[in-house]
This record gives sequence, structure tokens and C-alpha cells, in this order.
Amino acid sequence: MNYISSLRCIECRTEYQAAPGVYTCPSCGPLQGILDVVYDYQKIKEDYNVQTLEASPDHSMFRYLPFLPVNPESPRPHLRIGWTPLYRPSGLARAFGFNNLYIKDDGQNPTASLKDRASAIAAIRAVEEGMTTIACSSTGNAASSLAGNAAAMGLTTFIFVPGRAPQGKIAQLLIFGANVISVQGSYNDAFRLSAEAIERWGWYNRNAAINPYLIEGKKTVSMEIAEQLHWKVPDWVAVSVGDGCTIAGVWKGFTDLYRVGWIDKLPKLLGVQSSGCSPLVDSFLENRPWRPTGENTIADSIAVGVPRNPEKALRAVRESEGTMVAVSDQDILDAMRLLGRTSGIFGEPAGVAGLAGLRYLAGNGVIGSDETIVAIVTGNGLKDVHNAIAAAGEPIRIGPSMQLLVKELSWRGLD
Amino acid sequence: MNYISSLRCIECRTEYQAAPGVYTCPSCGPLQGILDVVYDYQKIKEDYNVQTLEASPDHSMFRYLPFLPVNPESPRPHLRIGWTPLYRPSGLARAFGFNNLYIKDDGQNPTASLKDRASAIAAIRAVEEGMTTIACSSTGNAASSLAGNAAAMGLTTFIFVPGRAPQGKIAQLLIFGANVISVQGSYNDAFRLSAEAIERWGWYNRNAAINPYLIEGKKTVSMEIAEQLHWKVPDWVAVSVGDGCTIAGVWKGFTDLYRVGWIDKLPKLLGVQSSGCSPLVDSFLENRPWRPTGENTIADSIAVGVPRNPEKALRAVRESEGTMVAVSDQDILDAMRLLGRTSGIFGEPAGVAGLAGLRYLAGNGVIGSDETIVAIVTGNGLKDVHNAIAAAGEPIRIGPSMQLLVKELSWRGLD
Repeated sequence: MNYISSLRCIECRTEYQAAPGVYTCPSCGPLQGILDVVYDYQKIKEDYNVQTLEASPDHSMFRYLPFLPVNPESPRPHLRIGWTPLYRPSGLARAFGFNNLYIKDDGQNPTASLKDRASAIAAIRAVEEGMTTIACSSTGNAASSLAGNAAAMGLTTFIFVPGRAPQGKIAQLLIFGANVISVQGSYNDAFRLSAEAIERWGWYNRNAAINPYLIEGKKTVSMEIAEQLHWKVPDWVAVSVGDGCTIAGVWKGFTDLYRVGWIDKLPKLLGVQSSGCSPLVDSFLENRPWRPTGENTIADSIAVGVPRNPEKALRAVRESEGTMVAVSDQDILDAMRLLGRTSGIFGEPAGVAGLAGLRYLAGNGVIGSDETIVAIVTGNGLKDVHNAIAAAGEPIRIGPSMQLLVKELSWRGLD
Repeated sequence: MNYISSLRCIECRTEYQAAPGVYTCPSCGPLQGILDVVYDYQKIKEDYNVQTLEASPDHSMFRYLPFLPVNPESPRPHLRIGWTPLYRPSGLARAFGFNNLYIKDDGQNPTASLKDRASAIAAIRAVEEGMTTIACSSTGNAASSLAGNAAAMGLTTFIFVPGRAPQGKIAQLLIFGANVISVQGSYNDAFRLSAEAIERWGWYNRNAAINPYLIEGKKTVSMEIAEQLHWKVPDWVAVSVGDGCTIAGVWKGFTDLYRVGWIDKLPKLLGVQSSGCSPLVDSFLENRPWRPTGENTIADSIAVGVPRNPEKALRAVRESEGTMVAVSDQDILDAMRLLGRTSGIFGEPAGVAGLAGLRYLAGNGVIGSDETIVAIVTGNGLKDVHNAIAAAGEPIRIGPSMQLLVKELSWRGLD
């Protein structure tokens, strides 16, 4: 059995017993009454410690099994999810003026985004609850990761994507055999239609805000960061923000470890949105309730004008004593190029927004140059080649002749 | 120091001392006189054994450091290269009728292909030899991996790609800051122009056939397969063939392990090309010297009409008592779709050609249904989204209305 003790409403704090179908607080409703998974931390401390964990031969997110909302004996996708590399690229650190800058490259997950951590949990829980079909709406990565993980477990998927989702993500969905519904409208339209369809056909619901278990998968990224830094918690963790579930998951990972005493401090969170779609940043900086906005950014994974988990996200940033910033699409493309050139890491636009936010803050005193900082790259740039080429320009095209090459390189000052 | 004892010409068997600039046999010339790296296997056996290796905390290709042509103290790219997952997807095994079928997913490398293993060696050796600029010609993956690994080490790159290279690979190159020369011609044109340019400007040469050290990086894929199968060597290893360097590297990995006695048998190799570009398969099956062919296949990474390492490749297959087959582009796209749907693994066309070859042989008696088989997926499908969509079809496009959805799913028999 797992170590879950209850599900607690983040609004009214009522605790519920975990059971199939219990997703949101009945009193507060599906929009406000998001549930938090609470574990029996005392029991975990009795059964596990840092040494048992470090000795684990499982180099995937499942090394943190006692902190996951699944039964240890349940079937899992065979894919290697999590335990992504934590890099310390010196060229990037110099470019930013931060001396202790790390990159957690979650684009190295099986379907090339952090969302695999949540989708694996969805697929396992669906099987635990006897379901054979899973559905979700997504700007792309949640969808492709669900399709991949479900395929690995022999499940059927229905995926609702907004019309603008990039081709790379659509290609993944189709290859993984998903039934893909491309909704000609906004993310909010896709979300609403998926909710109605899930209700009608009784599919398992992978929508991350509604399903409280998915954040539990995402939190493993923080557990890995803590372990990879030998339990020395960084001063700051920077991550992009769309629906709000990922940053809430990042926070949950650190707070779970803090509760069992494996770490002795918590990081500050830097939540970053695009200035073309920044409902949560605006709410945070202006200290007012969030309001829906347009979705005018190239960073499709965080183009969420109506975030589905706003409260968990805002609370996470406030509790951490962190901050939020909005950056322009140009800042995002610059960060993409800088990361690639200095470090050989290729992030998608939404994947590097956290890094762009760090660069925006560099030198203004909010973050000290000697503080330890981790920027999570949430997805691989191959998912969105169109924007990568927009960021990085075009190749030198010439005929197969040495004479032409000499002339061209000389003209460009490259010889 | 490393454990290299000599470089031996595969043609005339003369041994040379390894030194900077010694790449091919001076007597046999750069086309025939490809060199093989020979190690002091006795010394390796004295210093290492299976137990010391298995205890290594290094989960990357560098756990096989004694078998690599680099000095242990040399700087390396910070990227996590190798130690890619070996999966055993049961759905795929059922679809193929092979009971012990494994997938080695080398698309999980940092730049999403097996070529990272070779490019890391190139970048390290360039620095060891005091060079700051590396160049290569490539159908795409060698290039993007070189650009990424060089960026991680602060080196400059010049990359020659044929005009047809897919956008995903071009995007990677540009993001990694490479100087990209798109040669409007065939792979052979790009190769020739790069060779002349390397000669003229004195850049470090990463062309895999010419540079004998690169295969040494590639061979780690086999070492990992052996270790991941607990030193029980598979009966067959299937892999796609272009230039011939990868299959030669696969063979070198197993033979090196055999020489130190860590494995007690060798696998049969299945080398697969596309029927639109199969100079080596034709040579093998018709038992005659290879002849240049056209390059008419969607599998761009193996569209090599004039392979640069034909002899090493053909010898590897013959020595292993394996075989070669050519498959159609349709077979390749089918394999891509089948792998995705059953396993949640997304390979690029050239990446799944080995698998397509296995499927082609399934049931004809060449490979027994209980034999242990590993198919190496050499690159991730996100590198070539265009062909993935060709393989997998289009999404269902509808407006944001439940009524439309009900009608559409009912019409398709999906409700």
C-alpha cells in the first residue's frame, strides 16, 4: 500500500479519505477546491532514510516511491522517467553572472518533457482504478507524455489539444496512437470540451489541476535536485508557469522532503510567465486576484490565459518567499540561444522561460551572484523546431564548391 | 594515460603508433586504409574487472573509460551521454512474434541520437590535441551531436550538411551555435567539401570513417547492452546502416569485451538499409564489391550512397555470422508507428530501420522466436516531424462543441 493519509482541500482545509473518483473538494467545488495529497510522514521516516534512498539502484522517479500516490506493486510504464541530469554549465554561468548556476534538464525524459513525471502517475492510477481509457486537455506536453506512457501500458487515450499546438507535439501524439482531437479554439476551449467528454464517457481524468495525484509525480523533479546536490537545497529554483501545476509540484517536492527532515531549508521559487500571457505574474506583483488574459506568446506550453491551478501556484511562490516575473518572447528566444551556444542544451520556448526570468533578474540585486540557483528546463526544443529556427537564424547555403566556400567564409569573417 | 597500444590498418594489418594527425594508413590511403584502435587488453584485465565496473557510480558512457581513446584526466562535455535505457516492451514483442525482444533507446542521448557517443570523443580528443575548431560533414545527427558537445566544451564548429537534412537537425545545429554550411548537393558532395575545408583550415576532423577514434565512442552502446543484460550477450543485435561506422562500432564494443573475457560469446549482427539506398546490403547479399547508389529514402541518416566505412561494416556482419536486409520506406514508417503505439518510444526513420529489418525477417526462420534480440533505436523521431506525421496521419479537427465531438467520435466508431 501507499503512504497517503488524506486529501486536504487547499481552500477550506477539510481532509478527505483518498478513494477512486475523489478529485476535488465537494464543498468548495472543482475550481476552488483543489486537493493536496498528505502522506503519513512519520511512517515514511520509520521505513526509509537518506541512506536507504541513496543506495537504491532505481535511477528513475520511482526511487521516491514512498512519496508517490501509487501502490508499490502496481504495474508501471517501462519507460525511464525522471532522474534527469543536473548540469553546471560554466559558460552559461559566466554569461549570466551567477557563479553557482545549475540546469535541471527535464527535456531528457522519454517523451522529452517534465510532464512524463505526471503522466506516469496518471497511467498507473488509471490501471489501479480499473480504467482502460485516459483523457486530458493540454497545450501539448501533458498530452504527448500521456500518450507515450499510456501506450507503454497498453491503455487508450483521448487527447484534446488547442489548434495552435506545435507539430512536434502532434507528431508524438499520433505516433503513440492517441485519438487526437484538435480543438479549433483556445486552451480554455480544449479544457472545457475535455471535461465534458470525460464526464460523458467516464474516462480517467489526467487534467493536472483537477487530479490531485499528478502534482505528486511532478514533485520528484525537486527530490532529484535535492539528492543530486547532496541534500544542500539551492537558494533559488526558477521554473516557467502556465496552469500552475508544475511550480506547485516543485514546491511540494521540497516541502515533503522538509517534512521528513531530509533537508533543513526550503528554496525560494522564481515563477516565470511570458508577458504575452501572465495572469499569475500580474496577480502576484499587483497583489490582487488573478484575471483571465489573452494567450499571446510563442511559448505554447505556458500560454494559459485561464490557469487551472492558480491558488496552489501563487501560494507556493509566496510561502517560499520567492517572486514572479514576466519576460518577453524575445527574452525567451535569447535564453534559448544562449543556453544552446554555451551549454549544448536545447530547450523549447516554455522550457527556458525560467532561465529567461533569471537573466531578467541578473544584476538587479534580487538574486545574489553567489547564491545557488537551479533553472529547470521543462521540455526539449525539438518539440518546436519552428521557433528554434526563429531564435537561431538560417544556415549558410552554398553549392558544392571550395571556391564558393572560401569566398563565403571570408565575407562573413569566419576564415 | 589511456590503454591504446596501436592503430592497425584494416586492409594491410600494419600497426602504427597512435599520435595526433595519424588517422588513416599511409600505404593504403584514406579510402581503403581505415585504422582500428587496438588496446592493451592484458593491462585492462589487470586493472579492471566486471565487479569494479558494476560498482561505478558513473552512469554514462564514461563508465567504460579504460576502453576509450581518451586520457582519464582530460576535460569532458558536461552532458550525460550514454547509459541509455534498455527496454523490453511486451506489446512490441507480441506484435513481432519474438519473445525476447529489447529496445536500446539511444534517442535518449543529450542531442537525441547515438552519435553523441562519437562526438563526445571528438570534442575531448580535439582539446587533447590543442585544437579549438572541429568540423564534419553529416546527414544530420553526427552534426547536431558534434555541435552540442562542442558547445558544451566551448569549441567552435563548422558543419557541412546536405541540402535535404531535416529541419529538426538544422534547428539543433543553429541553436548550438555551429557555423552551418548547407551544401546544395548529395551527402557525398558535403563530405568532399568538408574534407577540402578541413585540409585548408587545419580544423579537427570529426568525419567518423576517417577518424578512427569515433567508432570507439559508438562501441559503448554494445558495452551497455551487455552490462544491462548482466553480461548475457543477445543472439542478435539489429541496427541501421549508413556510412557503416555505427555497425562497426557495435561490433567493436562486443569484441573488446570478448577480448577481456567479460563476455563468452558474440552476437550476430543484422545490418539494415533502406531499399532506396542499399549499397552495403547489395554488396553483402550478392557477395561482390559495393558500388555507389542513389540516395532515395526518407531515412536521411542512412541515405548514404557512397559509404565511407564499407569494409569495417561488411567485415563486422560477416565475422558475426549475421546478415543484412533492405527494407522499403513504407516498412520503416510502419515500424515507427508500431514502436510508438505499442511501446511509447518515438524513433526517427533511420533510427527504426533496424527494427523494420527485424520485422521483415520475422517468421522466415532466420531468427528464432525465442532468441534474444536487441534492436538499437539510433535517433529520436522529434528530429524529423515531417516523416512522423506521414507515418501516423492527422488529428481529428473540430470546433469547441460537445455536439460536434459526439457526432465525430460516433462516426469514427470511437465512442
